Amino acid sequence: MTDQSSQSQAETQKADAALVRDIADAVAERDIRWLARTLRRMHPADAADALETLPYDEFEEAVELLGEDLPSEILIELRDSYREGAVEMLPDQAVAQALDELDSDDATTILEDLEEDRRERILEDLAPVDRAELERSLAYEEETAGRLMQTEFVAVPEFWSVGETIDHARGLGAELPETFYEIYVVDPAHRLLGIVPLAALLRQPRDVKLEDIMHDPTTTLTPDLDQEDVAFQFQKYSLASAPVTDHANRLVGMITVDDMVDVIQEEHSEDLLALSNVSSADASDTVFETVKARVPWLAVNLLTAFIASAIISVFEGAIEQLVALAILMPVVVALGGNAGSQGLAVAVRAIATRELDGASARRTILREVLAALINGLIIGAGVGLITVFWFNDLRLGIVIAAAMLATFLWAGLSGILVPLTLKRLGADPAVASSVFVLTLTDVMAFFTFLGLASLVLL
Amino acid sequence: MTDQSSQSQAETQKADAALVRDIADAVAERDIRWLARTLRRMHPADAADALETLPYDEFEEAVELLGEDLPSEILIELRDSYREGAVEMLPDQAVAQALDELDSDDATTILEDLEEDRRERILEDLAPVDRAELERSLAYEEETAGRLMQTEFVAVPEFWSVGETIDHARGLGAELPETFYEIYVVDPAHRLLGIVPLAALLRQPRDVKLEDIMHDPTTTLTPDLDQEDVAFQFQKYSLASAPVTDHANRLVGMITVDDMVDVIQEEHSEDLLALSNVSSADASDTVFETVKARVPWLAVNLLTAFIASAIISVFEGAIEQLVALAILMPVVVALGGNAGSQGLAVAVRAIATRELDGASARRTILREVLAALINGLIIGAGVGLITVFWFNDLRLGIVIAAAMLATFLWAGLSGILVPLTLKRLGADPAVASSVFVLTLTDVMAFFTFLGLASLVLL
Repeated sequence: MTDQSSQSQAETQKADAALVRDIADAVAERDIRWLARTLRRMHPADAADALETLPYDEFEEAVELLGEDLPSEILIELRDSYREGAVEMLPDQAVAQALDELDSDDATTILEDLEEDRRERILEDLAPVDRAELERSLAYEEETAGRLMQTEFVAVPEFWSVGETIDHARGLGAELPETFYEIYVVDPAHRLLGIVPLAALLRQPRDVKLEDIMHDPTTTLTPDLDQEDVAFQFQKYSLASAPVTDHANRLVGMITVDDMVDVIQEEHSEDLLALSNVSSADASDTVFETVKARVPWLAVNLLTAFIASAIISVFEGAIEQLVALAILMPVVVALGGNAGSQGLAVAVRAIATRELDGASARRTILREVLAALINGLIIGAGVGLITVFWFNDLRLGIVIAAAMLATFLWAGLSGILVPLTLKRLGADPAVASSVFVLTLTDVMAFFTFLGLASLVLL
Repeated sequence: MTDQSSQSQAETQKADAALVRDIADAVAERDIRWLARTLRRMHPADAADALETLPYDEFEEAVELLGEDLPSEILIELRDSYREGAVEMLPDQAVAQALDELDSDDATTILEDLEEDRRERILEDLAPVDRAELERSLAYEEETAGRLMQTEFVAVPEFWSVGETIDHARGLGAELPETFYEIYVVDPAHRLLGIVPLAALLRQPRDVKLEDIMHDPTTTLTPDLDQEDVAFQFQKYSLASAPVTDHANRLVGMITVDDMVDVIQEEHSEDLLALSNVSSADASDTVFETVKARVPWLAVNLLTAFIASAIISVFEGAIEQLVALAILMPVVVALGGNAGSQGLAVAVRAIATRELDGASARRTILREVLAALINGLIIGAGVGLITVFWFNDLRLGIVIAAAMLATFLWAGLSGILVPLTLKRLGADPAVASSVFVLTLTDVMAFFTFLGLASLVLL
């Protein structure tokens, strides 16, 4: 980043701080009109940011004050925990109004936040058409294309011309979805025939028929498709939006790229946290939520750590005779663990980006084992040399170098095979991989080092 | 994922395998016509996938055979390492043709792959206008908005009407950029006045003036802005594209969301790998590249591991007297390390998603310390109890529980403070954090456990 941009960033932050203070003052003075007007004038994402910067109790007060005057575009931009809190504070009528104003995918997100009976009550107050649509969306499983898609899109018959399509759009005016990048061409049974990007529509004379300029759908997204697969297709084909069709190829919805960017962020965060044994994390987590997300994995680790201790205790006699073993144990374990997590991170990333499908898996396993062999030889030699100079014991140096090499090979092999196996079994390769690999590596490290030492040195 | 979708996925993979065999056969038989026709008929992203599935020498052969018949859209869809290889194989004329056909951001990517003197030679053969444009793009630093933007966009004066704009677009026809989602409104000095999304253009009667329907730019992207900041704004404001302006607010380029999705993936991968001490990774890495990406960090870890050993050696006497200490050491270190990497992963993720700016940092530090205290009490009690039962020694149990608690507090504090400090110093918080935090935690773990044991037990 250049100096200039960080300077302007600092200025923006200062301005933001002043604004947040003004908002806090308005909440304290219960100045609803100023608050509503100011928020409405900001970009919803910026307004949501400003509200989230308030202490949580002031945030709740602001939401309570605003009620129906809280723009629904701001509500949907709030982080999960704040949005859930806001929905809880708002009266039923304000929630119903937000459901009415928002696109169906955003409305579904709000509905997900509601408790069962409150959801029923609010749904009953909606227009029957809207209600049926939202209930259909909610019927799809979470984290699928069905949940992410909006049911607002533009679909026209294939025999229409460019001119007719533009006139039709002008006629609908504000009834059109707020944001769309392409028009879907359908047959009378609402089956998807093709796609006309708006840029292509603009390029063509009025009398050209849509069927002559439409292109085949690049993707086949069905409502039950996992959101990760949807995001993968958006990235692969550089899409801004894509149609969702049911199993009879009938057009049922549209997914836009902004939702996919969120999915990609989410999946990445999950992988990163899972590899570090955290089950979930959010900036607004309480201490209790933080503990709950971490203690279970620490408890698992507690058990595996004692397995390692049990291995060491087998060699109690050897350690009593040669305390250097106790001094050097952590070196073998730390380096083996590091090699294991290196391989693991590479494997989890490659699985997530679909680089380990089919034939390339075998090549990757071979590469990891060879790399582990070379790393083991280099680092093993280094550890061996330091040990020889420190303890003035050639045999101890050879033992630790050999143990290092064996541990590296084992770490390299388990670092790639454990996540691949979990993936084949249908499990998430990021979750649990780390505990497996590191436990296996620890056990291997202690066993080879202490075992070899017992055989050779005593 | 449902059974049905994984079944259809398996079918797709089978079809792909057959296609890849056909492509390999065509390469062997030097059937250039079939090869070019088949690749051209596929989506460029699929064609690139198919080519990447070939063994690398067959891939090179295919590129050599095709030469100028390799569609430039496929070239740009290849993974970095394959694209670099292909550009090297292609004759100058084919590269020049690709530069001519591609949008400027993609053309810049190809130019980056070329060696200095070959780049000069090829640029000289281009039309002067194209050449000047590409040289300007290359002058921006890597990983900035200037490198990612394309100089092809649609800009019109504010006094134009909707109808005039559509007629203008029709007149340009194929000269328009392939993909765009919005039209930029500029003054005679080419300064950006506003944005009209294509969907908004479509909604309006022909005689409406653009100045009446344009909205203010949501973002201010300058060519020198870091790509991570650009991606953050795309995500925050749910953008499909955004204008880039120079410091005089003159419109100089356009960035589209597909490039931002790639940036987000890239930055995430970097964080994930950096936290696991891998400097880079690619599916097509050779064994040598893999070793080169990992050995330096292992060497750093080797030194820090011996620091931990040095701490242990200070307590040599204590271990000789009580071998249970050697048996239990790994438990304290493993759990402390786990707690440290949990906190670290949460902090690195929160920094990446800008959740740790300003006031929330203090709150987060407090939360991490409190969570560490509670986790330390719970896990410390567990470890203490197991120790008491195993070694039948109450005092040893109390010592290890106390050491556990101290280590957790230390791990929690360093897990959040180290990445935050690196960030404030302008360094990447993911890189090096892990080595710092885990070394600090290891040292603390050995020191408190062995130190307390020496004081209390001996």
